Amino acid sequence: MDFSYSPKTKELRRRVLDFMDDVVYPAEPEYAGQLATAANRWQSPPVMGELKARAREAGLWNLFLPESDLGAGLTNLEYAPLCEILGRSPIAPEACNCSAPDTGNMEVLVRYGTEAQKKRWLEPLLDGTIRSAYTMTEPEVASSDATNIGARIERDGGHYVVNAHKWWASGAGDSRCALFILMGKTDPSAEKHRQQSMILIPADAPGITLVRPLTVFGYDDAPHGHFEITFEDVRVPADNLVLGEGRGFEIAQGRLGPGRIHHCMRLIGLAERSLEKMCARAKTRVAFGRPLADQGVVMEAIAESRIRIEQARLLTLNAAHRMDTVGNKAARAEIAMIKVVAPNMALDVIDRAIQVHGGAGICDDFGLAAAWAHARTLRLADGPDEVHRRAVARLELKR
Amino acid sequence: MDFSYSPKTKELRRRVLDFMDDVVYPAEPEYAGQLATAANRWQSPPVMGELKARAREAGLWNLFLPESDLGAGLTNLEYAPLCEILGRSPIAPEACNCSAPDTGNMEVLVRYGTEAQKKRWLEPLLDGTIRSAYTMTEPEVASSDATNIGARIERDGGHYVVNAHKWWASGAGDSRCALFILMGKTDPSAEKHRQQSMILIPADAPGITLVRPLTVFGYDDAPHGHFEITFEDVRVPADNLVLGEGRGFEIAQGRLGPGRIHHCMRLIGLAERSLEKMCARAKTRVAFGRPLADQGVVMEAIAESRIRIEQARLLTLNAAHRMDTVGNKAARAEIAMIKVVAPNMALDVIDRAIQVHGGAGICDDFGLAAAWAHARTLRLADGPDEVHRRAVARLELKR
Amino acid sequence: MDFSYSPKTKELRRRVLDFMDDVVYPAEPEYAGQLATAANRWQSPPVMGELKARAREAGLWNLFLPESDLGAGLTNLEYAPLCEILGRSPIAPEACNCSAPDTGNMEVLVRYGTEAQKKRWLEPLLDGTIRSAYTMTEPEVASSDATNIGARIERDGGHYVVNAHKWWASGAGDSRCALFILMGKTDPSAEKHRQQSMILIPADAPGITLVRPLTVFGYDDAPHGHFEITFEDVRVPADNLVLGEGRGFEIAQGRLGPGRIHHCMRLIGLAERSLEKMCARAKTRVAFGRPLADQGVVMEAIAESRIRIEQARLLTLNAAHRMDTVGNKAARAEIAMIKVVAPNMALDVIDRAIQVHGGAGICDDFGLAAAWAHARTLRLADGPDEVHRRAVARLELKR
Amino acid sequence: MDFSYSPKTKELRRRVLDFMDDVVYPAEPEYAGQLATAANRWQSPPVMGELKARAREAGLWNLFLPESDLGAGLTNLEYAPLCEILGRSPIAPEACNCSAPDTGNMEVLVRYGTEAQKKRWLEPLLDGTIRSAYTMTEPEVASSDATNIGARIERDGGHYVVNAHKWWASGAGDSRCALFILMGKTDPSAEKHRQQSMILIPADAPGITLVRPLTVFGYDDAPHGHFEITFEDVRVPADNLVLGEGRGFEIAQGRLGPGRIHHCMRLIGLAERSLEKMCARAKTRVAFGRPLADQGVVMEAIAESRIRIEQARLLTLNAAHRMDTVGNKAARAEIAMIKVVAPNMALDVIDRAIQVHGGAGICDDFGLAAAWAHARTLRLADGPDEVHRRAVARLELKR
Repeated sequence: MDFSYSPKTKELRRRVLDFMDDVVYPAEPEYAGQLATAANRWQSPPVMGELKARAREAGLWNLFLPESDLGAGLTNLEYAPLCEILGRSPIAPEACNCSAPDTGNMEVLVRYGTEAQKKRWLEPLLDGTIRSAYTMTEPEVASSDATNIGARIERDGGHYVVNAHKWWASGAGDSRCALFILMGKTDPSAEKHRQQSMILIPADAPGITLVRPLTVFGYDDAPHGHFEITFEDVRVPADNLVLGEGRGFEIAQGRLGPGRIHHCMRLIGLAERSLEKMCARAKTRVAFGRPLADQGVVMEAIAESRIRIEQARLLTLNAAHRMDTVGNKAARAEIAMIKVVAPNMALDVIDRAIQVHGGAGICDDFGLAAAWAHARTLRLADGPDEVHRRAVARLELKR
Repeated sequence: MDFSYSPKTKELRRRVLDFMDDVVYPAEPEYAGQLATAANRWQSPPVMGELKARAREAGLWNLFLPESDLGAGLTNLEYAPLCEILGRSPIAPEACNCSAPDTGNMEVLVRYGTEAQKKRWLEPLLDGTIRSAYTMTEPEVASSDATNIGARIERDGGHYVVNAHKWWASGAGDSRCALFILMGKTDPSAEKHRQQSMILIPADAPGITLVRPLTVFGYDDAPHGHFEITFEDVRVPADNLVLGEGRGFEIAQGRLGPGRIHHCMRLIGLAERSLEKMCARAKTRVAFGRPLADQGVVMEAIAESRIRIEQARLLTLNAAHRMDTVGNKAARAEIAMIKVVAPNMALDVIDRAIQVHGGAGICDDFGLAAAWAHARTLRLADGPDEVHRRAVARLELKR
Repeated sequence: MDFSYSPKTKELRRRVLDFMDDVVYPAEPEYAGQLATAANRWQSPPVMGELKARAREAGLWNLFLPESDLGAGLTNLEYAPLCEILGRSPIAPEACNCSAPDTGNMEVLVRYGTEAQKKRWLEPLLDGTIRSAYTMTEPEVASSDATNIGARIERDGGHYVVNAHKWWASGAGDSRCALFILMGKTDPSAEKHRQQSMILIPADAPGITLVRPLTVFGYDDAPHGHFEITFEDVRVPADNLVLGEGRGFEIAQGRLGPGRIHHCMRLIGLAERSLEKMCARAKTRVAFGRPLADQGVVMEAIAESRIRIEQARLLTLNAAHRMDTVGNKAARAEIAMIKVVAPNMALDVIDRAIQVHGGAGICDDFGLAAAWAHARTLRLADGPDEVHRRAVARLELKR
Repeated sequence: MDFSYSPKTKELRRRVLDFMDDVVYPAEPEYAGQLATAANRWQSPPVMGELKARAREAGLWNLFLPESDLGAGLTNLEYAPLCEILGRSPIAPEACNCSAPDTGNMEVLVRYGTEAQKKRWLEPLLDGTIRSAYTMTEPEVASSDATNIGARIERDGGHYVVNAHKWWASGAGDSRCALFILMGKTDPSAEKHRQQSMILIPADAPGITLVRPLTVFGYDDAPHGHFEITFEDVRVPADNLVLGEGRGFEIAQGRLGPGRIHHCMRLIGLAERSLEKMCARAKTRVAFGRPLADQGVVMEAIAESRIRIEQARLLTLNAAHRMDTVGNKAARAEIAMIKVVAPNMALDVIDRAIQVHGGAGICDDFGLAAAWAHARTLRLADGPDEVHRRAVARLELKR
C-alpha cells in the first residue's frame, strides 16, 4: 500500500497542471465571451479548436481509455489524478478530448465495436473531429430502472427501424455531433435483461427530431446541450447494431463503470476549485469587524470541505485501483460508492462556497452556480443515488 | 392558545384557494408562453394585467400591510396563510399586488414617507401601475454587514447627489419599474449605525445605468430580474430623503421584518406545492417492480418533507403572531428563526421532489429547478443564515 | 388562531414553575444522594414521598387525563406546557403522579376498564400508592410490528393462563410496582389485528420472574428500571381481561397517542434545560482567548438548538390541539410527526450541550449523558422513527 | 500509488484475524462474566492474563511503535490495518499490549525518556506488567485549549512538587496502574507554549487521591476506568521531569499524533463490527411482512455505513502513510482530519446499528450501546472536533 503518486503520475500531473495554468484558465473568459456573442450558440466557440491543438501538442490527448494503445495507455489509477485536474475547468476535458459522453461512447466502440464501426466512428471521435451523444433516458418511464425503457429497435430485412422518445441526450446540441448511440428493445418478449440492444445512429438520419434543448437549473449548457429527441421510423443498416441483439445491458454495464468514475474524478477537481475560491473570498471580505476567514463558522465550512474532498478523492482512487486490478464488474460496489459520494460531496462544497460568496455565488461571476447545477445532475445521471445505495447494500448483505 | 384558523381566515383562504384554482394555475402556461415568445423579456406578459384585474374584482388586492387601512386590513397572522397560498405560484403574488420588493417598499413609504412621497410613489404602487426596486447590496463589500455599505448620498444645496454601485436590485428589470429606494451613507464620520440614509430615486433619473441582469443559477427571472446598477452623480431633490439623515438603519430594520416573513410564508407554499408534485410523481412511476410511492426511501422523503413543512409553518405563524402582539422589534428572534428555517426547509423539500422526478426535476417541466434556485437566493437575501443564527444566539445568551 | 397561552394555562405554568424552583430542583441532589447510598436501589428514595406530598398540597397532582374529572380536568393543550416543565427534571413527573408508564396505564383503565378493575387498580394508581408496568415488547421478534408479538393468553375455565417472554418493561423494578398490563395473543388464528388482547396481571402472581434489569447506555435507571420478564403459566381470573378478546390493538392505539405526546412534551423540557446548561457553560469557559459564548461555532450550536426546540414545541402543541379537537385517531399523523421530531430534536440539542461541556458532558455531573441516553430510547420506544415516518407518508399519499 | 496491502501486511492481518477468531472473540463472554462477578471491579479479570500470554506466543505483542526495534518494527501504515482489527473487540488491544493510554505513554518514554526513565517505566510497560495513565485534562478549565491548564509543577531542590486537580485520567482505576504522566506548568510567566512540562509520577506517591471514577454515559469502564484525581504536594525526584522544563507542549504534540491515529484505527474496526451486527440482525428480523434486510430504509442505513467506513479507513491509512513519510508534524492536517472523521463516522454507524436492533441495541446484549458511548468520548478526548476543524481550516487558508 502506497499513497504516493508514481513518478510517471507526478510528471503527468505537472504537465496537466501547467497546461491548465498556461492554456486553459486564460482561455476561460475568451470561451465565455465567444459563446455570449455567438450567432449560433450550438457551435463550439473557435477558441476550443485552439485549445485542442495546444493539448495535442502538449501530448495531453485521449488520456482516458485504460488498457488500450489508442489513448495514452494509462490505467484508471493513473488517469484519475489527471481527470480530476481537467474537472477544475468546464472547458478542459473537451480540450484534451476527454469529455463525456464521448469518452464513454468511445469505450463502447473500442470494446464492442466491429472494425467497420471503429473505422467510421471511433477514429474521428479519437481525432476529435466529431462528437457523439448517448440516448438512453426516456421521459415516459422511470429510467433509473433500465428495464423500463420503451424504445423499439425492430429488424426489417437488412435494416433496423428505430422508434423512440428520448431525452437528456447530452452533447446532442453540438453542431459537430454526428453519432447517437441508442438503447432500446429488440425483443420485448425476451428475458428481462436480454430485451435491450444498442445501436449506432448517424445524427443526420431521416426521422430524427431534436425537439428542444433541456435546461439544467436555467442553463442550456450550450454548445453541448441536453436534448429531447424523437426517432420516428429511423432506418439504419443492420450492421449498426452493437455486439448483437439482447446485449444492451451488457454493454451499458461495461460503459457505465468508466463513465461514472470519470464524472467522479472531475467532480473532485470541481470541488477543489470551489474550495480555492471559498478560501480566497473568505480572506478578502470583512464582516462584523473581522475577515470571514477568521470566523469560526466559515472555518468550519472550509474544514468540512477539505475533509470531504480528501475522503472522496481517496475513495475514487481506490475504485480506480480496483477497476484496474479486479475489473469493472468486481469493482461495482466501489463504483457505486463513489457515484453516491462524489456528487453529494461536490454539491456540499460548492454550496458552502456559494454561501461564503453571498450574492456573487449565485450569479455567473464565479462559476459556482453553474458548477452546482452540473453537480446536481450527477445525483441522477448514470443512476440516482438511491439505486447505487441499494446496490451497495445488496453486496454488503451478501458478504 | 388556539391552532384553528379564525372564521375570517377560513373564508379568506377559501377565496384565495378558489382564485388559484380558477385563475392563477390555468394562467401559468399562458404566462410562460407569452414570456418565451416576447419581443422584450423585460415587459410583463399581457396575461398578468388580466390576472391583476381578476384579483381586484375578487377583492384579493393588497392583502399585506398590517395595521393599515390602505390594504385589506389584515394582521400578519391573518395574512400569513394567504401569502403562503400565493407562494405556490410564481405569478400569484404580483397578481394580487403582494409581491416583493414592492410590498417592503410600500411599507417603507407607509411608515416613514411624507405625504408628498406617498402621493407620488405609494399611490401608484398600491394601485399596481408602477413597480419599484430596493438597492442595498453592493458587489465590493460583504453587504451582510450593512455597515460596510459604501454608497454615497451627499447634500448639495436643495439636492442630494448619489454615487453608488449596487447589485441584486430585484425587480429593476421590469419596464414598469419607476422607483429605486437606495441605502447609502450621508455621513461616513457618524456613529456606525447613524451613517446611513435612505433616499427615493426615480428610475429615469440621469446617471443611472442598468449594467446587466444577473442570473440566479441560469435564470434571468425576467421580466422581474436582478440588476447590477451604477448611480453616477444622480441628483434628486432633498425632499426625497426618507425620514431624515442617519436613519437608514432604522428604516431598514422596519422594512426587513415584514419582508422576511412574507418570503417565508411564500416559501412554505412553494414547498407544499413541491411536495404535492413529489407525491403525484411517486404514485405514477414504477421502478424495480413497485411504484415509487411504495418504496421506503421515497416514503421517508415524503414524510420528512411533511414534517419539516409543518414545523416551518407553525414557526412562521407564531412569528406573525408575535409581530402582531409585541411588535417587529421584540419579535426579532422569531423573525430571525424563520428566516433560517424556511429557506432551508424549502430547499430540502424541493430537492427531494427533484430527486423523485429524476431528470424531469432539473429541467423546467415541473418548475422544481426554478423553485429551488429561487429558494436558494433566500439563504442570502435579507441576511445570510449565519447572520440570523448569530442574532438568535445573542438573544438566547442574554436571557 | 392564537399562540398565546390562556390565562388558565399561564396561571398553571406559574405554579408548576414555582414548584420546580422551590421543591423539585433543590431535591435533585438529595434524590441522587439517597439513591447512591441506598441499601436497595429498587426502592424509591424517601425524598420522593415528600415531593409527592408537596405536589398534592400545591394542587399539582394527576395533571394528565384529558376529558376526565379524575385528574385536573385539563385538555391535552392545557397539559402540554405543564408536562414540558415537568420534563425538565427526571424526578418531577413522578412527584406530580404524571410519569410513564403509569399515565398510559391509567388511561387504559379509565377508558377501557370495568368498575372492578378501576376500583382495584386505577384508584391506587391515581393515589400514587402503587406503580405499574406495561409489557408489550419481546426479545424474540421485531416488536415494532406488533402483529409479531408471540405472548400467549389462553382461556382455561374462569381463568386465563399467560405465557410470555417480555422485556423493556419500564418501571417493573420499582418495589411498589403492583400491576403489569400485558399484550398477547388470545387467538393466533384470528384476523391479523384481532389476535391480540390485553390483560391485567398482579405483579405478585406466581410464575412471574424478573429475569434482569436492562441497562440503557450503562444506566440501570433504578429504582424505575427496565426489565426482562418471563411469565410461565401465570393464571389470572378471566375478569382481568381488558375490554374483550381480540381488542388488544384497539386498546394499544388508544393508549399510545397520549403516551407518545407526553414523552414529546417532556423531551422539550429536557431540551430546554440542556440548552440552558449549554449557554451557562459557554459563558463561563474561555478557550483560545475568548469565551465560548463569543465563538461562532458555539453560537451556531445555541441558535440551532433554540430553533429546533421552538419548532418541536409548536408541532407538539398543535398535535395536542388536534387530539383535543378531532380525536386521537384523526390526529394520528400529527402524533406520528412529533414522535419522530421530539426525540431527534432532543438528542441533537443534548449532544450539542455535551460537546460544549467537554468531558463534563459525558459523565454524570451535569445530567446530560443520562438525558441523552433517555432520549435515545424514545427513537425506539412506542414505535421506531421508521414506522412513524412510514405512517406519515401513507397519510400524505392518501390526501 | 497502490491500494493493495503488502504481502507482509496481508500475512500479519491473517494472523491477527486468526487470533481474534480463535482467542479473542471466544474470550469476550468470559471476560464479561469474570468482571460481573468480581470482588474488585478494578482488578483485571484473570482471562486477560491468558489472552496476553496467547498474544505473546502468537508474536502479536507491541505491534505499535513505528521506527523502533522495541516493538514489532512496523510502520504506521503497516500497523493501521492490524490496529483496526484489534479495535473490533474492547479486550483485544490490551491482549496485544497495544491499548491506550499505554501506547501513547510508551511513545513518550521511547522518544523523550532518559535511559533511567526507560529502565524503570518503559520496560515493564512494554512487558505488560504495569499500566499507566495520562493526566492532562482539568475540571476547572476548558482543557481543549491546553494553555489553560492550571496544574503546578514546582522545583524544590532536587525535587518537583506537584499540585493539580485532574480528571479523565483513563486507566487510572486499574490496580496495575503504576505511573502517571502529568502535564502542568513549571513557569507560568514564560511564553504561552513554554510554560508547561511533563513529569513522571509513581502512582503510589504520597499526596495522590483517586477522588472517584467518572462514568461515560452510565459505564464506569472498569477495570480501566476514568478518574478524577487530586495531587497535593506530591514530591518526585527532579529526574522525573521529561525532556526539560517548558517542553510539555512539544511532548504533547509528539504524543498525540500516534495516540489519535490509533484511536481512529480502532474506531474503524468498531464500526465494521457494528455494521456486521446490523446486517446480521436485518437478515433475521421480519417486520410488516418482509425481512428488514429487504426494506429500503434499512438498506440505505447499511449502504451509508459501508460508504462512510470505507472513506474513513482510506483517510486514516493515508494519514498513517503521511506520518511515515513526512513526519507527524507535517502530517498534522491529515491527523486532524481523521480525528474529526473517525469518531463521527463510528457514532453514525453504531447509531444506525442500534436503530436496526431496536431495544436490543440500547442495552448491553450486543455491545452497541457501550461502543457508542466509547466513540462519543472520542469527539472530545485528544481535542474536540471543533479544535481539529479549526486546525484544518487554518492550514487550508495558508496554502
